[in-house]
Amino acid sequence: MNKEFIANEMKALQARICERLEGVDGIARFIEDEWVREEGGGGRTRIIRNGGLLEKGGVAFSAVHGPVSDVMKKQLGLNGNEFFATGVSIVLHPHSPHVPIIHMNVRYFELDSGTFWFGGGIDLTPHYIIPSQAKMFHEGLKKICDKYNLELYEKFKIWADDYFFIPHRNETRGIGGIFFDHQTEESGLSKEELFHFCIELGDNFVNLYNQQAELGRNLPVTAEELEWRNIRRGRYVEFNLVHDRGTKFGLFSGGRTESILMSLPATANWEYNLQPEKESREAKTLSLLQKGVNWVEGNL
Amino acid sequence: MNKEFIANEMKALQARICERLEGVDGIARFIEDEWVREEGGGGRTRIIRNGGLLEKGGVAFSAVHGPVSDVMKKQLGLNGNEFFATGVSIVLHPHSPHVPIIHMNVRYFELDSGTFWFGGGIDLTPHYIIPSQAKMFHEGLKKICDKYNLELYEKFKIWADDYFFIPHRNETRGIGGIFFDHQTEESGLSKEELFHFCIELGDNFVNLYNQQAELGRNLPVTAEELEWRNIRRGRYVEFNLVHDRGTKFGLFSGGRTESILMSLPATANWEYNLQPEKESREAKTLSLLQKGVNWVEGNL
Repeated sequence: MNKEFIANEMKALQARICERLEGVDGIARFIEDEWVREEGGGGRTRIIRNGGLLEKGGVAFSAVHGPVSDVMKKQLGLNGNEFFATGVSIVLHPHSPHVPIIHMNVRYFELDSGTFWFGGGIDLTPHYIIPSQAKMFHEGLKKICDKYNLELYEKFKIWADDYFFIPHRNETRGIGGIFFDHQTEESGLSKEELFHFCIELGDNFVNLYNQQAELGRNLPVTAEELEWRNIRRGRYVEFNLVHDRGTKFGLFSGGRTESILMSLPATANWEYNLQPEKESREAKTLSLLQKGVNWVEGNL
Repeated sequence: MNKEFIANEMKALQARICERLEGVDGIARFIEDEWVREEGGGGRTRIIRNGGLLEKGGVAFSAVHGPVSDVMKKQLGLNGNEFFATGVSIVLHPHSPHVPIIHMNVRYFELDSGTFWFGGGIDLTPHYIIPSQAKMFHEGLKKICDKYNLELYEKFKIWADDYFFIPHRNETRGIGGIFFDHQTEESGLSKEELFHFCIELGDNFVNLYNQQAELGRNLPVTAEELEWRNIRRGRYVEFNLVHDRGTKFGLFSGGRTESILMSLPATANWEYNLQPEKESREAKTLSLLQKGVNWVEGNL
Protein backbone atom coordinates (compact mmCIF):
# COMPACT_ATOMS: atom_id res chain seq x y z
CA MET A 1 0.00 0.00 0.00
CA ASN A 2 2.11 2.89 -1.28
CA LYS A 3 1.42 6.59 -1.23
CA GLU A 4 0.22 6.76 -4.84
CA PHE A 5 -2.41 4.12 -4.09
CA ILE A 6 -3.58 5.98 -1.00
CA ALA A 7 -3.76 9.31 -2.87
CA ASN A 8 -5.79 7.71 -5.65
CA GLU A 9 -8.20 6.22 -3.13
CA MET A 10 -8.57 9.61 -1.42
CA LYS A 11 -9.34 11.21 -4.76
CA ALA A 12 -11.92 8.55 -5.53
CA LEU A 13 -13.43 9.07 -2.06
CA GLN A 14 -13.80 12.79 -2.78
CA ALA A 15 -15.62 11.96 -6.03
CA ARG A 16 -18.04 9.51 -4.33
CA ILE A 17 -18.81 11.99 -1.53
CA CYS A 18 -19.49 14.85 -3.96
CA GLU A 19 -21.80 12.70 -6.09
CA ARG A 20 -23.80 11.61 -3.04
CA LEU A 21 -23.91 15.12 -1.60
CA GLU A 22 -25.34 16.46 -4.84
CA GLY A 23 -28.07 13.84 -4.53
CA VAL A 24 -28.78 14.88 -0.95
CA ASP A 25 -28.73 18.58 -1.82
CA GLY A 26 -31.10 18.08 -4.74
CA ILE A 27 -30.35 21.36 -6.52
CA ALA A 28 -26.75 22.60 -6.64
CA ARG A 29 -23.77 21.00 -8.33
CA PHE A 30 -20.13 21.23 -7.29
CA ILE A 31 -17.80 23.47 -9.20
CA GLU A 32 -14.20 22.28 -9.39
CA ASP A 33 -10.79 23.96 -9.25
CA GLU A 34 -7.69 21.94 -9.96
CA TRP A 35 -4.56 23.58 -8.64
CA VAL A 36 -0.86 22.87 -8.68
CA ARG A 37 1.50 23.45 -5.78
CA GLU A 38 4.73 25.05 -6.87
CA GLU A 39 6.86 22.96 -4.52
CA GLY A 40 5.19 19.68 -5.60
CA GLY A 41 1.77 18.10 -6.03
CA GLY A 42 -1.59 19.83 -6.02
CA GLY A 43 -5.26 19.31 -5.45
CA ARG A 44 -8.84 19.36 -6.58
CA THR A 45 -11.12 21.70 -4.61
CA ARG A 46 -14.86 21.28 -5.09
CA ILE A 47 -17.32 23.90 -3.91
CA ILE A 48 -21.10 23.82 -3.68
CA ARG A 49 -23.11 27.03 -3.30
CA ASN A 50 -26.76 28.07 -2.89
CA GLY A 51 -28.18 24.57 -3.01
CA GLY A 52 -31.44 23.09 -1.78
CA LEU A 53 -29.86 22.11 1.54
CA LEU A 54 -26.35 23.58 1.48
CA GLU A 55 -25.66 27.28 1.44
CA LYS A 56 -21.88 26.88 1.12
CA GLY A 57 -19.68 23.84 1.30
CA GLY A 58 -16.38 22.46 0.14
CA VAL A 59 -14.95 19.01 -0.41
CA ALA A 60 -11.23 19.26 -1.02
CA PHE A 61 -8.74 16.64 -2.14
CA SER A 62 -5.01 17.26 -2.16
CA ALA A 63 -1.82 15.27 -2.57
CA VAL A 64 1.26 17.37 -1.99
CA HIS A 65 4.93 16.60 -1.51
CA GLY A 66 8.28 18.31 -1.30
CA PRO A 67 11.10 19.20 1.02
CA VAL A 68 10.29 19.48 4.72
CA SER A 69 10.34 23.26 5.29
CA ASP A 70 11.68 25.04 8.34
CA VAL A 71 8.12 25.92 9.37
CA MET A 72 7.19 22.22 9.25
CA LYS A 73 10.29 21.20 11.17
CA LYS A 74 9.61 23.81 13.82
CA GLN A 75 5.82 23.58 14.12
CA LEU A 76 5.36 19.87 13.49
CA GLY A 77 8.67 18.59 14.82
CA LEU A 78 9.24 16.54 11.66
CA ASN A 79 12.33 14.44 11.28
CA GLY A 80 12.90 13.93 7.56
CA ASN A 81 13.85 15.63 4.32
CA GLU A 82 10.91 14.93 2.03
CA PHE A 83 7.24 14.64 2.94
CA PHE A 84 4.11 13.42 1.22
CA ALA A 85 0.60 14.30 2.40
CA THR A 86 -2.79 13.44 0.97
CA GLY A 87 -6.34 13.67 2.21
CA VAL A 88 -9.92 14.80 1.88
CA SER A 89 -11.38 17.73 3.88
CA ILE A 90 -15.00 18.76 4.07
CA VAL A 91 -16.96 21.57 5.67
CA LEU A 92 -20.66 22.06 4.93
CA HIS A 93 -22.75 25.04 6.00
CA PRO A 94 -26.48 24.42 5.43
CA HIS A 95 -29.05 27.17 4.98
CA SER A 96 -31.28 25.98 7.78
CA PRO A 97 -30.53 26.69 11.45
CA HIS A 98 -32.17 23.31 12.09
CA VAL A 99 -29.48 21.45 10.17
CA PRO A 100 -25.96 21.23 11.69
CA ILE A 101 -22.66 22.38 10.23
CA ILE A 102 -20.43 19.36 9.63
CA HIS A 103 -16.71 18.86 9.19
CA MET A 104 -14.76 15.81 8.10
CA ASN A 105 -11.12 15.19 7.35
CA VAL A 106 -9.11 12.08 6.59
CA ARG A 107 -5.43 12.32 5.81
CA TYR A 108 -2.25 10.34 5.29
CA PHE A 109 1.26 11.64 5.86
CA GLU A 110 4.65 10.08 5.26
CA LEU A 111 8.30 11.06 5.39
CA ASP A 112 11.14 9.73 3.28
CA SER A 113 12.58 8.37 6.52
CA GLY A 114 9.82 5.72 6.41
CA THR A 115 7.60 7.22 9.11
CA PHE A 116 3.91 7.41 8.22
CA TRP A 117 0.66 8.21 9.96
CA PHE A 118 -3.07 8.66 9.45
CA GLY A 119 -5.26 11.32 10.94
CA GLY A 120 -8.76 12.64 10.65
CA GLY A 121 -12.14 12.98 12.25
CA ILE A 122 -15.76 13.98 11.87
CA ASP A 123 -17.50 16.50 14.09
CA LEU A 124 -20.90 18.11 14.14
CA THR A 125 -21.90 21.69 15.03
CA PRO A 126 -25.67 21.99 15.44
CA HIS A 127 -26.94 25.56 15.66
CA TYR A 128 -29.48 24.18 18.14
CA ILE A 129 -28.40 21.10 20.06
CA ILE A 130 -31.03 18.37 20.32
CA PRO A 131 -29.64 15.55 22.49
CA SER A 132 -31.53 12.75 20.73
CA GLN A 133 -30.03 13.83 17.42
CA ALA A 134 -26.56 14.24 18.91
CA LYS A 135 -26.93 10.69 20.25
CA MET A 136 -27.70 9.33 16.77
CA PHE A 137 -24.61 11.01 15.35
CA HIS A 138 -22.29 9.67 18.05
CA GLU A 139 -23.83 6.20 17.84
CA GLY A 140 -23.11 6.20 14.12
CA LEU A 141 -19.47 7.08 14.74
CA LYS A 142 -19.15 4.56 17.55
CA LYS A 143 -20.49 1.80 15.32
CA ILE A 144 -17.77 2.44 12.74
CA CYS A 145 -15.02 2.72 15.39
CA ASP A 146 -16.15 -0.46 17.17
CA LYS A 147 -15.57 -2.53 14.01
CA TYR A 148 -11.84 -1.74 14.31
CA ASN A 149 -11.19 -1.62 18.03
CA LEU A 150 -13.60 -1.29 20.95
CA GLU A 151 -11.44 1.38 22.55
CA LEU A 152 -11.26 3.68 19.52
CA TYR A 153 -14.51 5.58 19.93
CA GLU A 154 -13.93 6.70 23.49
CA LYS A 155 -10.33 7.65 22.82
CA PHE A 156 -11.14 9.59 19.67
CA LYS A 157 -14.27 11.17 21.18
CA ILE A 158 -12.25 12.65 24.05
CA TRP A 159 -9.67 13.82 21.53
CA ALA A 160 -12.41 15.64 19.57
CA ASP A 161 -13.71 17.30 22.76
CA ASP A 162 -10.21 18.58 23.45
CA TYR A 163 -9.48 19.63 19.88
CA PHE A 164 -12.74 21.34 18.92
CA PHE A 165 -12.68 23.64 21.91
CA ILE A 166 -12.70 27.46 21.98
CA PRO A 167 -10.75 28.44 25.11
CA HIS A 168 -11.59 32.17 24.88
CA ARG A 169 -15.31 31.27 24.94
CA ASN A 170 -14.89 28.32 27.28
CA GLU A 171 -17.14 26.31 24.99
CA THR A 172 -16.77 23.47 22.52
CA ARG A 173 -17.31 24.24 18.84
CA GLY A 174 -20.26 21.86 18.70
CA ILE A 175 -21.15 18.37 19.96
CA GLY A 176 -17.78 16.99 18.85
CA GLY A 177 -17.44 13.59 17.25
CA ILE A 178 -14.13 11.86 16.75
CA PHE A 179 -10.65 13.24 16.09
CA PHE A 180 -7.34 11.41 15.73
CA ASP A 181 -3.84 12.26 14.61
CA HIS A 182 -0.46 10.55 14.21
CA GLN A 183 -1.98 7.07 14.07
CA THR A 184 0.78 4.60 13.28
CA GLU A 185 0.91 0.82 13.69
CA GLU A 186 1.66 1.51 17.36
CA SER A 187 -2.06 2.28 17.62
CA GLY A 188 -2.71 -1.47 17.45
CA LEU A 189 -4.14 -1.22 13.93
CA SER A 190 -2.10 -2.15 10.86
CA LYS A 191 -1.46 0.35 8.08
CA GLU A 192 -4.18 -1.38 6.03
CA GLU A 193 -6.67 -1.18 8.89
CA LEU A 194 -5.96 2.49 9.49
CA PHE A 195 -6.43 3.16 5.79
CA HIS A 196 -9.71 1.24 5.65
CA PHE A 197 -10.92 3.01 8.78
CA CYS A 198 -10.36 6.39 7.12
CA ILE A 199 -12.06 5.34 3.90
CA GLU A 200 -14.98 3.83 5.81
CA LEU A 201 -15.43 7.06 7.75
CA GLY A 202 -15.49 8.90 4.44
CA ASP A 203 -17.99 6.51 2.93
CA ASN A 204 -20.29 6.88 5.91
CA PHE A 205 -20.04 10.66 5.96
CA VAL A 206 -22.95 11.46 3.66
CA ASN A 207 -25.27 9.00 5.41
CA LEU A 208 -24.40 10.42 8.82
CA TYR A 209 -25.02 13.94 7.57
CA ASN A 210 -28.18 13.14 5.67
CA GLN A 211 -29.64 11.52 8.79
CA GLN A 212 -29.19 14.86 10.57
CA ALA A 213 -30.31 16.96 7.61
CA GLU A 214 -33.55 15.02 7.11
CA LEU A 215 -34.58 15.82 10.68
CA GLY A 216 -34.29 19.57 10.19
CA ARG A 217 -34.31 20.68 6.60
CA ASN A 218 -38.07 21.00 6.20
CA LEU A 219 -38.79 22.72 9.51
CA PRO A 220 -40.01 26.34 9.35
CA VAL A 221 -37.39 29.01 10.10
CA THR A 222 -37.82 32.34 11.90
CA ALA A 223 -35.71 35.49 11.60
CA GLU A 224 -34.54 34.96 15.20
CA GLU A 225 -33.36 31.45 14.34
CA LEU A 226 -31.41 32.77 11.35
CA GLU A 227 -29.78 35.38 13.57
CA TRP A 228 -28.77 32.67 16.04
CA ARG A 229 -27.44 30.51 13.19
CA ASN A 230 -25.23 33.44 12.16
CA ILE A 231 -23.99 33.96 15.72
CA ARG A 232 -23.08 30.27 15.94
CA ARG A 233 -21.33 30.60 12.59
CA GLY A 234 -19.34 33.49 14.08
CA ARG A 235 -18.04 31.12 16.77
CA TYR A 236 -17.18 28.62 14.04
CA VAL A 237 -15.11 31.34 12.34
CA GLU A 238 -13.42 32.15 15.66
CA PHE A 239 -12.45 28.52 16.21
CA ASN A 240 -11.17 28.05 12.68
CA LEU A 241 -9.15 31.27 12.47
CA VAL A 242 -7.86 31.53 16.05
CA HIS A 243 -7.41 27.94 17.17
CA ASP A 244 -7.62 25.32 14.42
CA ARG A 245 -4.08 24.00 14.00
CA GLY A 246 -4.75 22.77 10.48
CA THR A 247 -6.02 26.17 9.29
CA LYS A 248 -3.22 28.09 10.96
CA PHE A 249 -0.53 25.74 9.70
CA GLY A 250 -1.97 25.96 6.19
CA LEU A 251 -2.13 29.76 6.16
CA PHE A 252 1.29 30.28 7.68
CA SER A 253 3.06 27.70 5.53
CA GLY A 254 1.82 29.17 2.26
CA GLY A 255 -1.01 26.73 1.53
CA ARG A 256 -3.72 27.60 -0.99
CA THR A 257 -5.76 30.19 0.91
CA GLU A 258 -9.03 29.69 -0.96
CA SER A 259 -8.96 25.93 -0.33
CA ILE A 260 -8.10 26.38 3.35
CA LEU A 261 -10.74 29.07 3.96
CA MET A 262 -13.50 27.20 2.11
CA SER A 263 -14.36 26.20 5.69
CA LEU A 264 -15.80 29.67 6.39
CA PRO A 265 -19.55 30.27 6.13
CA ALA A 266 -21.17 32.52 3.51
CA THR A 267 -22.15 34.88 6.30
CA ALA A 268 -21.48 35.19 10.04
CA ASN A 269 -22.56 37.64 12.73
CA TRP A 270 -21.14 39.04 15.94
CA GLU A 271 -23.04 40.72 18.76
CA TYR A 272 -21.35 42.26 21.78
CA ASN A 273 -21.88 40.19 24.91
CA LEU A 274 -24.90 38.27 23.66
CA GLN A 275 -26.71 36.52 26.52
CA PRO A 276 -29.63 34.29 25.48
CA GLU A 277 -32.73 34.33 27.66
CA LYS A 278 -32.72 31.82 30.47
CA GLU A 279 -34.36 28.48 29.61
CA SER A 280 -34.38 29.36 25.89
CA ARG A 281 -33.26 26.85 23.27
CA GLU A 282 -30.26 29.10 22.68
CA ALA A 283 -29.31 29.02 26.36
CA LYS A 284 -29.75 25.23 26.42
CA THR A 285 -27.47 24.91 23.41
CA LEU A 286 -24.77 27.01 25.09
CA SER A 287 -25.06 24.94 28.27
CA LEU A 288 -24.35 21.77 26.27
CA LEU A 289 -21.25 23.13 24.52
CA GLN A 290 -18.89 21.50 26.94
CA LYS A 291 -16.37 18.70 27.06
CA GLY A 292 -17.17 15.30 28.50
CA VAL A 293 -20.85 14.99 27.59
CA ASN A 294 -21.67 11.33 27.01
CA TRP A 295 -24.01 11.71 24.05
CA VAL A 296 -24.42 7.97 23.48
CA GLU A 297 -25.38 7.01 27.01
CA GLY A 298 -27.04 10.33 27.72
CA ASN A 299 -25.70 11.71 31.00
CA LEU A 300 -27.50 15.01 30.34
CA MET B 1 3.83 61.89 35.15
CA ASN B 2 3.00 58.66 36.91
CA LYS B 3 0.90 55.72 35.76
CA GLU B 4 -2.22 56.78 37.67
CA PHE B 5 -2.15 60.16 35.92
CA ILE B 6 -1.75 58.53 32.51
CA ALA B 7 -4.59 56.07 33.20
CA ASN B 8 -6.89 58.90 34.26
CA GLU B 9 -6.08 60.84 31.12
CA MET B 10 -6.77 57.77 28.99
CA LYS B 11 -10.13 57.33 30.70
CA ALA B 12 -10.98 60.98 30.10
CA LEU B 13 -9.93 60.60 26.46
CA GLN B 14 -12.35 57.69 26.07
CA ALA B 15 -15.14 59.85 27.49
CA ARG B 16 -14.42 62.75 25.13
CA ILE B 17 -14.24 60.47 22.09
CA CYS B 18 -17.54 58.75 22.94
CA GLU B 19 -19.32 62.04 23.44
CA ARG B 20 -18.11 63.37 20.10
CA LEU B 21 -18.89 60.12 18.32
CA GLU B 22 -22.46 60.21 19.58
CA GLY B 23 -22.72 63.67 18.09
CA VAL B 24 -21.36 62.45 14.75
CA ASP B 25 -23.60 59.39 14.75
CA GLY B 26 -26.67 61.43 15.54
CA ILE B 27 -28.88 58.57 16.75
CA ALA B 28 -27.32 55.86 18.90
CA ARG B 29 -25.82 56.18 22.37
CA PHE B 30 -23.01 54.10 23.85
CA ILE B 31 -23.82 51.42 26.37
CA GLU B 32 -21.18 50.83 29.01
CA ASP B 33 -19.78 47.77 30.77
CA GLU B 34 -17.40 48.22 33.66
CA TRP B 35 -15.38 45.11 34.37
CA VAL B 36 -12.81 44.02 36.90
CA ARG B 37 -9.78 41.91 36.14
CA GLU B 38 -9.23 39.22 38.73
CA GLU B 39 -5.45 39.63 38.72
CA GLY B 40 -5.64 43.43 39.05
CA GLY B 41 -7.30 46.46 37.48
CA GLY B 42 -10.16 46.50 35.01
CA GLY B 43 -11.81 48.53 32.34
CA ARG B 44 -14.75 50.36 30.88
CA THR B 45 -15.98 49.04 27.54
CA ARG B 46 -18.39 51.22 25.57
CA ILE B 47 -20.36 49.86 22.64
CA ILE B 48 -22.50 51.62 20.06
CA ARG B 49 -24.98 49.71 17.92
CA ASN B 50 -27.44 50.42 15.09
CA GLY B 51 -26.79 54.14 14.90
CA GLY B 52 -27.32 56.71 12.18
CA LEU B 53 -23.77 56.22 10.88
CA LEU B 54 -22.33 53.34 12.89
CA GLU B 55 -23.64 49.81 12.69
CA LYS B 56 -21.34 48.47 15.41
CA GLY B 57 -18.46 50.05 17.25
CA GLY B 58 -16.55 49.92 20.47
CA VAL B 59 -14.42 52.37 22.43
CA ALA B 60 -12.62 50.55 25.22
CA PHE B 61 -10.60 51.87 28.12
CA SER B 62 -8.61 49.61 30.39
CA ALA B 63 -5.98 49.94 33.10
CA VAL B 64 -4.69 46.58 34.26
CA HIS B 65 -1.78 45.47 36.39
CA GLY B 66 -0.36 42.41 38.03
CA PRO B 67 2.45 39.92 37.96
CA VAL B 68 4.16 39.36 34.61
CA SER B 69 2.82 35.95 33.55
CA ASP B 70 4.78 33.22 31.80
CA VAL B 71 2.83 33.92 28.59
CA MET B 72 3.89 37.57 28.76
CA LYS B 73 7.50 36.68 29.48
CA LYS B 74 7.56 34.25 26.58
CA GLN B 75 5.53 36.16 23.98
CA LEU B 76 6.57 39.71 24.85
CA GLY B 77 10.04 39.04 26.22
CA LEU B 78 9.32 41.13 29.31
CA ASN B 79 11.95 41.59 31.95
CA GLY B 80 10.16 42.46 35.18
CA ASN B 81 7.90 41.13 37.88
CA GLU B 82 4.94 43.50 37.86
CA PHE B 83 3.40 45.29 34.88
CA PHE B 84 0.94 48.12 34.40
CA ALA B 85 -0.87 48.77 31.12
CA THR B 86 -3.48 51.33 30.18
CA GLY B 87 -4.99 52.56 26.94
CA VAL B 88 -7.91 53.26 24.69
CA SER B 89 -8.89 51.03 21.74
CA ILE B 90 -11.47 51.79 19.09
CA VAL B 91 -12.96 49.96 16.12
CA LEU B 92 -15.93 51.40 14.23
CA HIS B 93 -17.91 49.58 11.54
CA PRO B 94 -20.28 51.94 9.70
CA HIS B 95 -23.43 50.82 7.88
CA SER B 96 -22.46 52.37 4.59
CA PRO B 97 -19.99 50.74 2.20
CA HIS B 98 -19.03 54.32 1.30
CA VAL B 99 -17.72 55.03 4.80
CA PRO B 100 -14.49 53.32 5.94
CA ILE B 101 -13.93 51.07 8.92
CA ILE B 102 -11.53 52.76 11.35
CA HIS B 103 -9.30 51.56 14.15
CA MET B 104 -7.39 53.51 16.76
CA ASN B 105 -5.35 52.49 19.76
CA VAL B 106 -3.14 54.40 22.18
CA ARG B 107 -1.50 52.64 25.07
CA TYR B 108 1.05 52.98 27.83
CA PHE B 109 2.96 50.13 29.43
CA GLU B 110 5.39 50.01 32.32
CA LEU B 111 7.28 47.47 34.37
CA ASP B 112 8.28 47.69 38.02
CA SER B 113 11.88 47.61 36.78
CA GLY B 114 11.33 51.19 35.56
CA THR B 115 10.99 50.44 31.85
CA PHE B 116 8.06 52.15 30.12
CA TRP B 117 6.81 52.63 26.60
CA PHE B 118 3.97 54.05 24.54
CA GLY B 119 2.34 52.47 21.54
CA GLY B 120 -0.61 53.01 19.27
CA GLY B 121 -1.82 53.96 15.86
CA ILE B 122 -4.76 54.84 13.66
CA ASP B 123 -5.57 53.07 10.41
CA LEU B 124 -8.38 53.24 7.91
CA THR B 125 -10.07 50.44 5.95
CA PRO B 126 -12.27 51.84 3.18
CA HIS B 127 -14.57 49.29 1.55
CA TYR B 128 -13.91 51.20 -1.67
CA ILE B 129 -10.59 53.04 -1.85
CA ILE B 130 -10.77 56.57 -3.24
CA PRO B 131 -7.22 57.97 -3.45
CA SER B 132 -8.22 61.60 -2.84
CA GLN B 133 -9.91 60.58 0.42
CA ALA B 134 -7.01 58.35 1.44
CA LYS B 135 -4.74 61.34 0.85
CA MET B 136 -6.83 63.52 3.20
CA PHE B 137 -6.59 60.90 5.93
CA HIS B 138 -2.84 60.49 5.63
CA GLU B 139 -2.31 64.25 5.44
CA GLY B 140 -4.22 64.61 8.69
CA LEU B 141 -2.01 62.04 10.39
CA LYS B 142 1.15 63.56 8.95
CA LYS B 143 0.19 66.98 10.27
CA ILE B 144 -0.08 65.63 13.82
CA CYS B 145 3.16 63.66 13.55
CA ASP B 146 5.08 66.60 12.08
CA LYS B 147 4.38 68.68 15.20
CA TYR B 148 6.48 66.24 17.22
CA ASN B 149 9.20 65.17 14.81
CA LEU B 150 9.44 65.44 11.05
CA GLU B 151 10.55 61.83 10.74
CA LEU B 152 7.66 60.32 12.69
CA TYR B 153 5.05 60.09 9.96
CA GLU B 154 7.15 58.20 7.46
CA LYS B 155 8.52 55.83 10.08
CA PHE B 156 5.09 55.10 11.57
CA LYS B 157 3.40 54.90 8.14
CA ILE B 158 5.80 52.16 7.02
CA TRP B 159 5.24 50.41 10.35
CA ALA B 160 1.47 50.46 9.73
CA ASP B 161 1.92 49.05 6.21
CA ASP B 162 3.93 46.18 7.69
CA TYR B 163 1.63 45.59 10.63
CA PHE B 164 -1.80 45.79 8.96
CA PHE B 165 -0.91 43.22 6.33
CA ILE B 166 -2.65 39.90 5.57
CA PRO B 167 0.10 37.59 4.29
CA HIS B 168 -2.28 34.79 3.27
CA ARG B 169 -4.11 37.26 0.99
CA ASN B 170 -0.99 39.20 0.06
CA GLU B 171 -2.92 42.40 0.70
CA THR B 172 -2.95 45.16 3.29
CA ARG B 173 -6.00 45.42 5.57
CA GLY B 174 -6.81 48.87 4.23
CA ILE B 175 -4.93 52.05 3.35
CA GLY B 176 -2.93 51.90 6.58
CA GLY B 177 -2.17 54.98 8.61
CA ILE B 178 0.36 55.05 11.42
CA PHE B 179 1.43 52.36 13.88
CA PHE B 180 4.08 52.47 16.59
CA ASP B 181 5.12 50.34 19.53
CA HIS B 182 7.75 50.34 22.29
CA GLN B 183 8.34 54.09 22.05
CA THR B 184 10.67 55.10 24.87
CA GLU B 185 12.75 58.22 25.33
CA GLU B 186 15.23 56.61 22.94
CA SER B 187 12.76 57.64 20.23
CA GLY B 188 14.00 61.22 20.64
CA LEU B 189 10.75 62.31 22.31
CA SER B 190 10.47 62.71 26.06
CA LYS B 191 7.94 60.77 28.10
CA GLU B 192 5.76 63.91 28.21
CA GLU B 193 5.96 64.38 24.46
CA LEU B 194 5.09 60.74 23.78
CA PHE B 195 2.13 61.05 26.13
CA HIS B 196 0.89 64.25 24.49
CA PHE B 197 1.33 62.71 21.04
CA CYS B 198 -0.96 59.81 22.05
CA ILE B 199 -3.57 62.11 23.55
CA GLU B 200 -3.44 64.42 20.54
CA LEU B 201 -3.97 61.47 18.20
CA GLY B 202 -6.97 60.51 20.31
CA ASP B 203 -8.38 64.02 20.29
CA ASN B 204 -8.06 64.22 16.51
CA PHE B 205 -9.61 60.81 15.94
CA VAL B 206 -13.24 61.89 15.67
CA ASN B 207 -12.42 64.76 13.32
CA LEU B 208 -10.36 62.52 11.07
CA TYR B 209 -13.17 59.98 10.97
CA ASN B 210 -15.95 62.47 10.51
CA GLN B 211 -14.12 63.98 7.55
CA GLN B 212 -14.23 60.55 5.88
CA ALA B 213 -17.79 59.81 7.01
CA GLU B 214 -19.20 63.06 5.66
CA LEU B 215 -17.93 62.21 2.18
CA GLY B 216 -19.79 58.88 2.04
CA ARG B 217 -22.62 58.59 4.52
CA ASN B 218 -25.34 60.12 2.37
CA LEU B 219 -24.48 58.35 -0.88
CA PRO B 220 -27.00 55.80 -2.20
CA VAL B 221 -26.14 52.14 -1.59
CA THR B 222 -26.80 49.13 -3.81
CA ALA B 223 -27.14 45.47 -2.82
CA GLU B 224 -23.88 44.74 -4.66
CA GLU B 225 -22.08 47.40 -2.64
CA LEU B 226 -23.39 45.89 0.61
CA GLU B 227 -22.19 42.46 -0.49
CA TRP B 228 -18.73 43.92 -1.21
CA ARG B 229 -18.74 45.68 2.17
CA ASN B 230 -19.39 42.32 3.81
CA ILE B 231 -16.60 40.63 1.85
CA ARG B 232 -14.19 43.36 2.94
CA ARG B 233 -15.39 42.90 6.50
CA GLY B 234 -14.56 39.19 6.14
CA ARG B 235 -10.95 40.16 5.39
CA TYR B 236 -11.01 42.41 8.44
CA VAL B 237 -12.06 39.42 10.53
CA GLU B 238 -9.28 37.33 8.98
CA PHE B 239 -6.66 39.92 9.85
CA ASN B 240 -7.89 40.38 13.39
CA LEU B 241 -8.30 36.69 14.24
CA VAL B 242 -5.35 35.22 12.35
CA HIS B 243 -2.69 37.94 12.46
CA ASP B 244 -3.35 40.79 14.87
CA ARG B 245 -0.85 40.36 17.68
CA GLY B 246 -2.95 42.39 20.12
CA THR B 247 -6.04 40.25 19.57
CA LYS B 248 -4.14 37.00 19.77
CA PHE B 249 -2.22 38.02 22.85
CA GLY B 250 -5.44 39.12 24.52
CA LEU B 251 -7.32 35.92 23.74
CA PHE B 252 -4.46 33.60 24.69
CA SER B 253 -3.57 35.43 27.90
CA GLY B 254 -7.09 35.31 29.29
CA GLY B 255 -8.18 38.87 28.48
CA ARG B 256 -11.86 39.83 28.46
CA THR B 257 -13.10 38.17 25.25
CA GLU B 258 -16.06 40.47 24.66
CA SER B 259 -13.87 43.58 24.92
CA ILE B 260 -11.21 42.13 22.63
CA LEU B 261 -13.70 40.90 20.00
CA MET B 262 -15.70 44.13 19.96
CA SER B 263 -13.49 44.76 16.91
CA LEU B 264 -15.52 42.27 14.83
CA PRO B 265 -18.28 43.53 12.53
CA ALA B 266 -21.98 42.80 13.03
CA THR B 267 -21.91 40.69 9.90
CA ALA B 268 -19.25 39.45 7.47
CA ASN B 269 -19.34 37.33 4.34
CA TRP B 270 -17.05 34.88 2.57
CA GLU B 271 -17.21 33.77 -1.04
CA TYR B 272 -14.96 31.10 -2.50
CA ASN B 273 -12.31 32.58 -4.81
CA LEU B 274 -14.09 35.85 -5.46
CA GLN B 275 -12.57 37.71 -8.42
CA PRO B 276 -14.00 41.17 -9.10
CA GLU B 277 -14.54 42.17 -12.71
CA LYS B 278 -11.58 43.84 -14.35
CA GLU B 279 -11.60 47.65 -14.15
CA SER B 280 -14.39 47.57 -11.54
CA ARG B 281 -14.20 49.72 -8.41
CA GLU B 282 -13.78 46.48 -6.45
CA ALA B 283 -10.80 45.43 -8.58
CA LYS B 284 -9.28 48.90 -8.23
CA THR B 285 -9.64 48.67 -4.45
CA LEU B 286 -7.88 45.30 -4.37
CA SER B 287 -5.08 46.65 -6.56
CA LEU B 288 -4.44 49.44 -4.03
CA LEU B 289 -4.28 47.14 -0.99
CA GLN B 290 -0.52 47.01 -1.02
CA LYS B 291 2.39 48.26 1.02
CA GLY B 292 4.37 51.33 0.07
CA VAL B 293 1.69 53.47 -1.54
CA ASN B 294 2.50 57.14 -0.96
CA TRP B 295 -1.00 58.42 -0.29
CA VAL B 296 0.12 61.95 0.54
CA GLU B 297 2.24 62.57 -2.53
CA GLY B 298 0.14 60.32 -4.70
CA ASN B 299 2.42 57.93 -6.56
CA LEU B 300 -0.63 56.01 -7.83
